Parts: sequence; structure tokens; C-alpha cells
Amino acid sequence: MTSAEYLQIAFLLSKRANSKDIRPNPFVGAILVNQKGEIIAEGYHKKAGEAHAEVIAINNAKQKRDSLSDCTLYVTLEPCSHFGKTPPCTNLIIDHKIAKVVIGSLDPNPLVDGVQQLKDAGIDVEICLLPEIETFNSVFNINHRLKRPKYILKTATTLNGKIADRAGTSKWITNNSSRKYVHEILRSSVDAILTTAKTVIQDNANLNIRREGKEAEELSVIIIDRNLEILNNAQQQLALFYPRVHSKIYLVTDKKYEHDLPNHIEIIETVFTNGMYDTPSLNKILLSKNICEVLVEGGGKLNGAMINENQIDEINLFIAPSLLLDNQAINAFNWEELQLMDQKTNLKLIETKIIEQDVLLRYQLMH
Amino acid sequence: MTSAEYLQIAFLLSKRANSKDIRPNPFVGAILVNQKGEIIAEGYHKKAGEAHAEVIAINNAKQKRDSLSDCTLYVTLEPCSHFGKTPPCTNLIIDHKIAKVVIGSLDPNPLVDGVQQLKDAGIDVEICLLPEIETFNSVFNINHRLKRPKYILKTATTLNGKIADRAGTSKWITNNSSRKYVHEILRSSVDAILTTAKTVIQDNANLNIRREGKEAEELSVIIIDRNLEILNNAQQQLALFYPRVHSKIYLVTDKKYEHDLPNHIEIIETVFTNGMYDTPSLNKILLSKNICEVLVEGGGKLNGAMINENQIDEINLFIAPSLLLDNQAINAFNWEELQLMDQKTNLKLIETKIIEQDVLLRYQLMH
Repeated sequence: MTSAEYLQIAFLLSKRANSKDIRPNPFVGAILVNQKGEIIAEGYHKKAGEAHAEVIAINNAKQKRDSLSDCTLYVTLEPCSHFGKTPPCTNLIIDHKIAKVVIGSLDPNPLVDGVQQLKDAGIDVEICLLPEIETFNSVFNINHRLKRPKYILKTATTLNGKIADRAGTSKWITNNSSRKYVHEILRSSVDAILTTAKTVIQDNANLNIRREGKEAEELSVIIIDRNLEILNNAQQQLALFYPRVHSKIYLVTDKKYEHDLPNHIEIIETVFTNGMYDTPSLNKILLSKNICEVLVEGGGKLNGAMINENQIDEINLFIAPSLLLDNQAINAFNWEELQLMDQKTNLKLIETKIIEQDVLLRYQLMH
Repeated sequence: MTSAEYLQIAFLLSKRANSKDIRPNPFVGAILVNQKGEIIAEGYHKKAGEAHAEVIAINNAKQKRDSLSDCTLYVTLEPCSHFGKTPPCTNLIIDHKIAKVVIGSLDPNPLVDGVQQLKDAGIDVEICLLPEIETFNSVFNINHRLKRPKYILKTATTLNGKIADRAGTSKWITNNSSRKYVHEILRSSVDAILTTAKTVIQDNANLNIRREGKEAEELSVIIIDRNLEILNNAQQQLALFYPRVHSKIYLVTDKKYEHDLPNHIEIIETVFTNGMYDTPSLNKILLSKNICEVLVEGGGKLNGAMINENQIDEINLFIAPSLLLDNQAINAFNWEELQLMDQKTNLKLIETKIIEQDVLLRYQLMH
């Protein structure tokens, strides 16, 4: 087998983890292969704070044999070389005199310099980058490279890009199955939904996760709410004020709030410029709360502003089989400033899916 | 074999014809089957003015045997019962004492009453409607049912429905392969393009048919040009004034034009209401010129007005992997009037196609 093929096996192992269990860590899988090419041990990272994939693989191997000095370690991510919640994996590899390490993707964390440390210790290092590994760890890579959560924008429009009529009615553009997909696939995988007070009040949506045959699950919500409208007495009946045990409502504002709040409501204070919150400060706070991946379900203005500020990494656009001709109907991307053809925002098509009569188009944005 | 299966064979035969050769007629195929279930003769309608499918099948059979009185005729369309360019097919069927006629689709032409005439003559008639036959003859059916050409709207937009930036630049939203598809698949099959003087002048497009490795082919163009701007001296250099032998430029206006015009330019005079031409009069004139199927390649206003007046039968929307955020960028459907969610125009998704990074969505509109 080739290095890439052994790495594919390690990659498969890495996918056994549940994304929410490992946050803020990446998916990592590792295998140890002896001189005959036999896989003698395997491991994957299962839970943040617990052992890394390399450690599990090495410990498994040690139960079978004393020396690993004839072995090659295949690991999907550059081994860590710093003290985090666990000691550096490079130390363990060096201590066990492992002959060779083959690495499937590099760690974007500048604290990690595993490749160099291994080389300095005289270990043969092969870097064999597999793009699918990096893609699968996009949340982790974006968190470190861009110092912010990964943002997935979801919107549902008519064929001509409208999300609501001029009276604000948006129910229902897309079909039941598309809405089910939003719950079961999109909301299920993220740490929070980002939206605006205007959208929350207008749609009065639960913003929870509903799966067929299961009880509704909680999901944290980050609400851009400069004037803290959500805290008005009149808004206390909103559907998103369901009893929360392990999720929160975060209100992003530039106002001071002096009163007590229930445990599940938290204020995030930041400056606003031209109506838009300060993205670096909110991003930093969200990462500190282990909110690594966010689904953006706002209105046209938030969508436009976030695209304009390079905050969106993926677009999931559900297109309904209808036209809303009215120019005053609401656009999915509402942006008042000039953008000429040669300044257009380029996307990369990554998936198309037919959901009954709706079409889901998925695009990636590169930053 | 069942009736539907024999009709499928006749349907296959019907497709041998070239759509432009038979206009304004439909595709028709016919087979004659003897008592043993053997196909003894076949026929299809090849060219307007020439023999109908039933006639060809019957004449072929007559060369082999004298009597057809034990035979069943399977024909994809109700046989004609009136004198058109050829005598009624029902007469021939009755004259040959054919035992049974199985019909795959009914003729929308009110002059045709073939089913009743055959029954009155004592012939056993079975109606076995196959929706695919009716769909395949959509041009013919729309021409008769709606008394107008079939209109296919083609537009190419960003993901948020924009066809040009606010400066009017539309080159190029979609990729080369999508534009090739427009020439080789869409323009190749229609009798004319419908557009506006504004679009023609702005884009200065040839509006001809270019196929790889072939010389450009002519295509007639119908231009909504209320003020006859196309005839201004300044416009004489437009790319669509290429030498024309068998195609024309039709200018739709409410102005009188008293001067001479070259043979390939024709004025169509009609009234205009709220900036929109009178659709019934233009439609009647186009059908009289044997323009049965038209590709609409106009701007947002024409698209909006035609959808609003129920003039569009199919939409071909090419979606490019880009966003043009500017609210003042030009919409593919530009319509100033109110349309609320419950009044939205419903479409039927009929095809999705990935063309490199572009996505083509095809929708049908039912009237």
C-alpha cells in the first residue's frame, strides 16, 4: 500500500468521532504499520481533553510488543508539539524511537511545529497532504487560520432570490423536506445559530433542532440585537424562550445592560459601525465559548454584510420552484453599496441536491 | 404487447422528424399491426405539407397486401378529420376498413374531430393517452391551445438573481460551456429570439447560432422596439445586422414607419399598454409567419412582464457561482408591482444540469 492509502485508513478512523465531542479539536486518526506493512495498532481522537490519536495508537501497540523502532506512524494531522490539555505527541513519538512518520495534513495552529521537532530528533518525516482531510477539518482550520467560527449561511429563496414578500411573509417558500434537511443536517452539526432580533421577532421561530420521531433538541442562538429588543416585555412570549438546560441565548449589543438576567441569557457587548457589529470581537468571544461552527439564518441585510466582510465560508441555498416578481419583495442578499461585475464575490460549487421540487445548491467561499 | 407499448414504437418513429421541418405540424408516428400482433407497416410525418404518418403507414401496407380490415392502426396523435394541406386521414382509414385505431394523444385543434368520425364509421377506437407524447409536442399543443408561440425564457444570473451590475455590464456571468449550450441546444431548436432594443443595443450581440466547427447560422430576431431605435443611423453597425438570407429582423412598435426597408427587416405594428406590447396581436402575427417556438433573451423588464402576462412556458436559468451584492445591480425579473407570497408564480422543476461550475435549472409553467 502507498502512503496515501495508509493515510486513507487513518482518515476513516478519524471520522468515527462526533464533531461536537471533539470541539475545538480536529478529527485525527492514526495507525502504526510494521516493516512487513501490517497495521499493528490504530487510534482516533474521540473527545476534547482526552488522548490524541497518536497516543492511543502507540499505547495499543505497546500492549503487543516492546519496540516500535521498526514502525511507521501514519497520522492524518501533524502531531502536536506543545502542551495543551495533553502533553506533546512529538515527545511520545521520539521516546518510542518510531522510524518514520507520515502526515496527511498540517496543523494551522502556529504553536504546533511537529514536523520540525520530529526531523530534529532524527525521525524520517513524509508529508503527504490529502485535500479531503483538510476539507473534513474545515471547522478546525478556519478557527485557527481565520480566528473565527466557521460560518455556514443558509437561505431559502424563490428562483429570483426573494426570501419574503414586501409584507415580510416568508412562510413557506421551500417545502417540508427542505426544512427537515435544515434541522437534521444543518442545525444538528453546528454549535449555534446566528440571526438578528428582527428575524427572530418577525418569524417567531423556535430555532431548535427537530428530528422526526425525537424530542426537540436545544441549540444556542446568537442574536444581533443592538437595541436589546429581545428583552422587551412584549417579546417574552417568543418561541425561542423555551426552557434551556445546556444552550444559551447570546444578545450582541453596544448597550450597557444593568439588570439581572436568567442564566441562559448572556449579553455580548461590542461596538457597531454602520449598523454592523464588530466581527473580530464577536468572533473572539464565540471561540472562547467553544462555539466553533455557526449556522447563519438571518435576513438579507445580515447576509449581505457578512458576505461583504468575508465572514461566510459556505452557502446553502434552497431554491423553491416559484417566482416572486415584486421588486420590493425581500432579497436574500440585501446590500446598498456598489459592486461592479469585476468585483463580484466568487463561489465554488460543492454540491447540488434535488429535494422534491426544491434544489439545494452548496457553495464554498475561499478566504 | 400492450397498446401503450405499440404506441411507444410509433412515438419513437415520430421523433425521426426534425422539428423545424414539420412546423407548424406536430410530430406523429404510426404503425399498422395485424391480428398476429406483427407490425406490417410504419410511417412518420417528415415535412409540413407532405403525407401524414397514417397515410405513409397505410400506403406501405398496401404494397404488401390488399386488405387492412384485420389491422389495428397505432397512431401517436388523433387522426385529422379536416382538409388542411392534405386530405383528412380519417377518410383513408375508413376507406381501408381498418378494424381498430389506438390513439396516443388528442389533437388540440378544434377543427379536428377524428375520434368521433372514426367511431361514427363503426371503427373501434381506443384512446390511450401517453403524457410523454403530449410533452414532446408541447410546441404544437401550445400553438393551438394558447394561440401563441411556445416561449422559452433563458437568463443567466448570479446566485442572487442578478443579470448585470448597475452599470449594465453583463459579460460574463456564466461560463463558456453554458454559453455554448445556449447556442447548440436552445437557439438551435427555436424559430426566433425575442428581445428588446435596449438589450440589443447594450450587448451588441449577434443573436445567431454558433456551433463548434461550423459556420454561424442565421436566426430570426423579434425586437420589442417601440421607438424604432434600431433603425437609427447610429445603430446600423449593430452585430445583428449580418447578411441575412432566410431569417428576418422583426421590429415591434406602435409607430408608423413610412420609409423603405431592406427585405430582411419587417415592422410589426401593435398597441402598447404600460410599456408592454399587445401580446395577442403579436402572437397571432408570429404564428401566421410560422414562428412556433421563441427563445426569450431579453432584460429583466421583459422577463417580468412576460411572466406576469402568462406568456412564458419554460424557464432555463443558468446560475453562476458568484454573488453581486449591490441592490442596484439588475434583476433577472424586474417587476414594479405588488406580488404577495400567496400570489407567487409557481413553477415545475423539469431538469437540473451541472455545467462545470454553473447550474442550469429548467422549469415548466402551466397555463
